[in-house]
Parts: sequence; structure tokens; C-alpha cells
Amino acid sequence: MSNQQKELSKLRRRAFQRERDLAQKLWKLGFAVVRGPASGAKAKRVPYPDLVAIKNKYIFIFEIKTKEKEDHVYVEEHQISKLREFEKRSGGKAFIAIKIIDETDWRFVPLEALEKTIGGRYKVDKKFFREGLSLEDLYRDASGDKPLTEFLRK
Amino acid sequence: MSNQQKELSKLRRRAFQRERDLAQKLWKLGFAVVRGPASGAKAKRVPYPDLVAIKNKYIFIFEIKTKEKEDHVYVEEHQISKLREFEKRSGGKAFIAIKIIDETDWRFVPLEALEKTIGGRYKVDKKFFREGLSLEDLYRDASGDKPLTEFLRK
Repeated sequence: MSNQQKELSKLRRRAFQRERDLAQKLWKLGFAVVRGPASGAKAKRVPYPDLVAIKNKYIFIFEIKTKEKEDHVYVEEHQISKLREFEKRSGGKAFIAIKIIDETDWRFVPLEALEKTIGGRYKVDKKFFREGLSLEDLYRDASGDKPLTEFLRK
Repeated sequence: MSNQQKELSKLRRRAFQRERDLAQKLWKLGFAVVRGPASGAKAKRVPYPDLVAIKNKYIFIFEIKTKEKEDHVYVEEHQISKLREFEKRSGGKAFIAIKIIDETDWRFVPLEALEKTIGGRYKVDKKFFREGLSLEDLYRDASGDKPLTEFLRK
């Protein structure tokens, strides 16, 4: 493998680990979780989101974007279209799941909070690393129970 | 690769193609579709079903079993447990999706129609290759619309 291939393979492995991290947290909160095939996999003739989590017929759809440091996040238009199509078909709610690696917890930004840029992409403002919805918010949304605050703060 | 590895790789590729075939048919019927990671993938710390299809908050969960010829299908107990867990968490309905390759259309068998064997596995009777639910039945279940009979008979 060339150095470039090694670097790419490392990035893919890391992206995969982050998806798994979020999948496991949602699973522990009682969600049924399905992860799409890895990015770039041949499976992609039908467009899949990164993650779908379901609880009591509440359906959450995720595209995952992580950052090394606090900065705006940009999402391609075709990814937003895919998420909207999934919302429409499933009756669920789509979010961009964001996280500053080794620094912040997962935060979730609904599509209507994104700003369209002149270039046609969509911007997730960096303020959402603090102000986005938390796992606890999603949990509360999907259940009548009290939030698992203690669990989530661990 | 040894001949055995080649054979295994061929079987995996075929299983993958059949999953894709069902995923595409469901997508064309208006379902949001998510496929789990390939069997044997490292992703399996959280147990995923083969396919999840959602329409209007109707959630269908599938484990896929295909046969070369008409014969009873057996499913391992841990796979049934996984499907039941997904049903419970999501509020959805799980099916074994069966098909005789190059011969029958997809048929869907709900878990309560399976018989537990003395050995602890679950048997899908071969009669369900004819009597199981059809794609049309699932479609009708998930929508108030008229079934897409013409489309489905193509």
C-alpha cells in the first residue's frame, strides 16, 4: 500500500469506529440500531444514511460528521437530499450527528437548522457543538420515561 | 486464495446480491431501506438484521434465507432472539424473507409462524415458499393506497 492508501485506510477505520461508538450508545439507550454499509462500499446503488435508530416507532436518521477541532461543518447537497428522502419515506426525523473528537459529546442538528451556502452546500454552524440536541434529548423524545441522566453523564 | 476460500467468497457475493435485490424492490415500492453490514463484518458487536425497511412509520425487519431448491428453512435461535429484540425496541415487525433462487418471488414469514425444533432451531416450513406474505402484502400493510399490482407482477 502507498502512504496515501494507508492514510485513507486509517481515516476509514476511524470513521467506522466513530459510527460504532454512536451506534453502541444508542443501543444502550434502548434503540434498535442499523448501520449502513461502509462509505464507498459497492452496496451504494440505493443511498443509505450512516445510521438509523428506532425506538417505539420513533425513527431517527443520522449522517455523521466529526471534526478534529471546533469549526463549521459542511454537508454536500446530495447527502441532504438523501436524508430528506429518507425522512419522507420513513416518517422519521433526520439529523447531522456532530462531534469534536476526544473533546465534545455527540450533538444532533435537524435539517431545518442548516444554512444553505452560495456554493450549494449546507452549513452546520459550529455553535451546535454546544447547542445541538443531546443523546438525552433524543432519548426523551422517543420515550415517555424520565431521561437516563445518570447514565448519560457517565 | 484456496478453492475453499474462493467458494466462500462466491457464496458471500451471492448472498450480498440477493440482499440488494430485495432492498431495491422495497425501495421502488417507496420504503426507506437500510442494509446491515455484511455478515461476518467486524461491525457485529451490536447485532444487526440483514435489512430494515420503513414506510410511514411501519417498520419491517428482515433476516434473509435463500434456497437452491424447495426445502424447509432452519434459523438459528440466536438469530430469532436478535429479531425479537429488534421488534421490541423498534415497535416493528420481523420476518424471515425466503426465496428459491431463480424460481420463486420473495415471501415473508412472521416469527409466530415458525416451529421450534427439538434441537432448538426454528423451522420455516417449505409451504411458505407459496403461502408466505408477498411484497404486495407488505406494501398494502404499510400504506392506505391500492396495491401496486401491475408493478409487482412485472
